[in-house]
Parts: sequence; C-alpha cells; structure tokens
Amino acid sequence: MTTQKVSYLTQQQAKDIDEELFHEYKFSVDQLMELAGLSCAASIAKAYSDAKKYSKCLVVVGGGNNGGDGLVCARHLKLFGYEPTVVYPKRTDKELYKNLTLQCEKMDIEILEKIPTKSQFDLIVDAIFGFGFSGEIREPFGSILKELKTLEKTIPIVSIDVPSGWDVEKGPGSDESLQPECVVSLTAPKSCMQHFQGKYHFLGGRFVPKALQNKYQIILPEYSGSEQIVQI
Amino acid sequence: MTTQKVSYLTQQQAKDIDEELFHEYKFSVDQLMELAGLSCAASIAKAYSDAKKYSKCLVVVGGGNNGGDGLVCARHLKLFGYEPTVVYPKRTDKELYKNLTLQCEKMDIEILEKIPTKSQFDLIVDAIFGFGFSGEIREPFGSILKELKTLEKTIPIVSIDVPSGWDVEKGPGSDESLQPECVVSLTAPKSCMQHFQGKYHFLGGRFVPKALQNKYQIILPEYSGSEQIVQI
Repeated sequence: MTTQKVSYLTQQQAKDIDEELFHEYKFSVDQLMELAGLSCAASIAKAYSDAKKYSKCLVVVGGGNNGGDGLVCARHLKLFGYEPTVVYPKRTDKELYKNLTLQCEKMDIEILEKIPTKSQFDLIVDAIFGFGFSGEIREPFGSILKELKTLEKTIPIVSIDVPSGWDVEKGPGSDESLQPECVVSLTAPKSCMQHFQGKYHFLGGRFVPKALQNKYQIILPEYSGSEQIVQI
Repeated sequence: MTTQKVSYLTQQQAKDIDEELFHEYKFSVDQLMELAGLSCAASIAKAYSDAKKYSKCLVVVGGGNNGGDGLVCARHLKLFGYEPTVVYPKRTDKELYKNLTLQCEKMDIEILEKIPTKSQFDLIVDAIFGFGFSGEIREPFGSILKELKTLEKTIPIVSIDVPSGWDVEKGPGSDESLQPECVVSLTAPKSCMQHFQGKYHFLGGRFVPKALQNKYQIILPEYSGSEQIVQI
C-alpha cells in the first residue's frame, strides 16, 4: 500500500487520454487491451493468490472496452491456473471481440449468456461498465447487477476500472451500484474511486507515456521494476 | 534456475505453432508481440536489474517480427526506467511497425539508422533475426553483426528468441554468430539453444494454450503466479 499522492480523472479527462493514446500515440486497441486485461489478472493473482481457493471465477462481460478487458483477463487467469467462466450476454459484433471470445473458447473457457444459478463461484470479475458509462442501465445489465448485488454478500467482486452501477465521477448512488472488494484502475483512477471503501485498490495499464502524464498533470504511484500493477 | 525438462523446437515446429496461434486461435500480431516484447523487457529487468548501471540500452532491430518484439521491448524498457536507443536500419513498411516506431519516438526513444560509434552503451538488445531466419545474412546486417561481435567483448548482449547469426537448429557456426550473455526464448526454446553457453536463459511469451502445448508435446517450465517469464 502506497501513501503517495494519486490523481483522480474526470470522465472527460479519461476519454481525452484514451483518445490521445489511440490517435496521437497510435496504440491499437489490441495492444492496450492486452496490457490492461493482463494487469487485471495480475491484480487478482496478487489479492486472491490461492488459485485453488479462488479457482472458480465468474467474469461478467459488457459490450464495450471494459468487457474486452474482461475477456483478456479471463484468458490470463486461465494461464495463471484459475478456472474462469465468462458470462457474455450481448456479444460485440467487432472482429477483435469475436477473436478475443474465440481465444477464450479455444482455451476451454466456457462462455455463457446468463449467470448460472446452480453453480458456486469463488470470485466474480465485474467487466460490465467502464469509464465511458453514463445514463440509464439497460437490460439485461440491470437484472445482472441485481443478481450480482445478491452474490456480493458472500462472494468477493473485483471490478475492472470502475465498479458497475457507479457514476464515474460521483461514485455509488443507485440500488444497482456494486460494492466490490477490489478495483483495478486502468491508466489512472477515476474520480469515483475516492468513494471506494473496499479492501484492495490496484493501478494497472502501465503504458502511459511520461509526456502524456505531464500534459494532464497526472500523479501516479511508482510501479516497481517490471511490475504491471501497483497497489494504491 | 529450473531443473525441469524443457522441449526444444525445430524451425518447422516453431513456424507451425506461430501459424496456429494466428490462424486457429486468431491472436493478432499486435497482441502477441506486445506480450513477447514485454517479457523481453521483464527478463532484462530481472537479469540487469540496476536500471542506472544498465541505463543505456542499444536495441538493434531487424525487419521482421523479431524486430517488432524489439520495438515493443524498447518501449517497456523506457517505462521501467532504462534509457533505450533503437537502431533500425531497414524500416518495415507495415502499419503495425510504423505505429510501434512512432510509439517509441513519442516516448523520447531515439531511432537511428546505424550503430553510433561515439556513444557508450551498457547493454545491447539483439532483435535482428528470429526463428524464421535461414540462408545468407544480407547487408546491412552482416556489417552490423560484425560491429556487434566487437562490442560483445565488453558489453552484454541480450538476444530475443534466437541469437542473430545462429542457425535456428544447429546453433552458432559462422563468424557473424553472436555470443549473447542472455537469451529470451519466446513460446518455447528453439533447438539452437541447446548450444547456449551464456549466463541467463529466460522463457517468455506466456500465451501458449494448453491444447497447443499438448498437440506439439511441448514440455515447458512452470511460470510462477502471474510472472511473464521463467528462468531456465
């Protein structure tokens, strides 16, 4: 745990930085999603390191980039010795997403449309909504969040970047706001994370160029050595 | 250092596995190159962990995928606190390579056409030829390998996947064969690595699906936790 000062991004700043990474620095979504998803899996391996105790991970995947990070995370979790199952209710009709899904399937990760009611899970990964979320929660995700609200009483939830159901800046506020035990912020934490009361907060997505960090005056904790994550 | 049994791939096996990763598992080059380059940088951060002592890294980049891994490696080295300089004599005319180069440039990594004769370097990364290499060494790489042969007497060389100038199966044999201190094998070591006499041998590229590993009966050392590399 670090005591260093950390910046929190507004939703607009997060969008601007994302835009610059793709259009000015010419990173591809494939590249950054791979690093982002890897850092989520690495955070889980750090906080829930007993891959046998936490073997059965349910990765709930939304239709946007947060969902893509979840698919990459599931694949790396499998390589780390966990046994993830993916719930992917609305598949994204883009080449990259189809390929990420196929990679999971070919690595024997089951892809379901709904949360299975009869199975027991040890850990839930919330990859539903990310920093781009605003407005109303549409179905089937409203119902899914309600299900997860029940499950979170007994099963730890790890949210990718922003806990689903939260306002990206104001934090929790609605009945559907999850209360994750762990959050993996990507690039830099979003404003909502000032309201986080859970146990573990990691920063991942170690790809922000110094010049970009300076331009937006972002203060980040120091990563150690070749580590892809740092605990905040 | 592990005492586990390890498989060594023939050139044809390495090509077949590569082919399957891209065409059967539908990985993109962007994805796997990012993980491969990251594991090279992580190996350097492990073996040459004093980023001040080994700050000035010269990354010599060839025209193929081994060169692409080198560009990714250079970027991650920069993020890890090293000060890499890239030598890229023959730029590859593909979108991905242009973007990887731009990412380096925008992260203040100098890209040169030739090895600078008046600068001192602490470490050299050989990203010239990979597992696809065969036949004659063409210019300017013949001259570059001769220069590196002189430099290797005083500066440690880290080769990506296959030491340049080596036969992928038979190992060193020509005047241009480098003698690296460290090699980072990607996916699985190639046959030539049975002739490696250097100090450090790492395995990286932790993305090989179990089914593919079984199909080719590849025995690999176990990666620990979320580590992207393992020392052999």
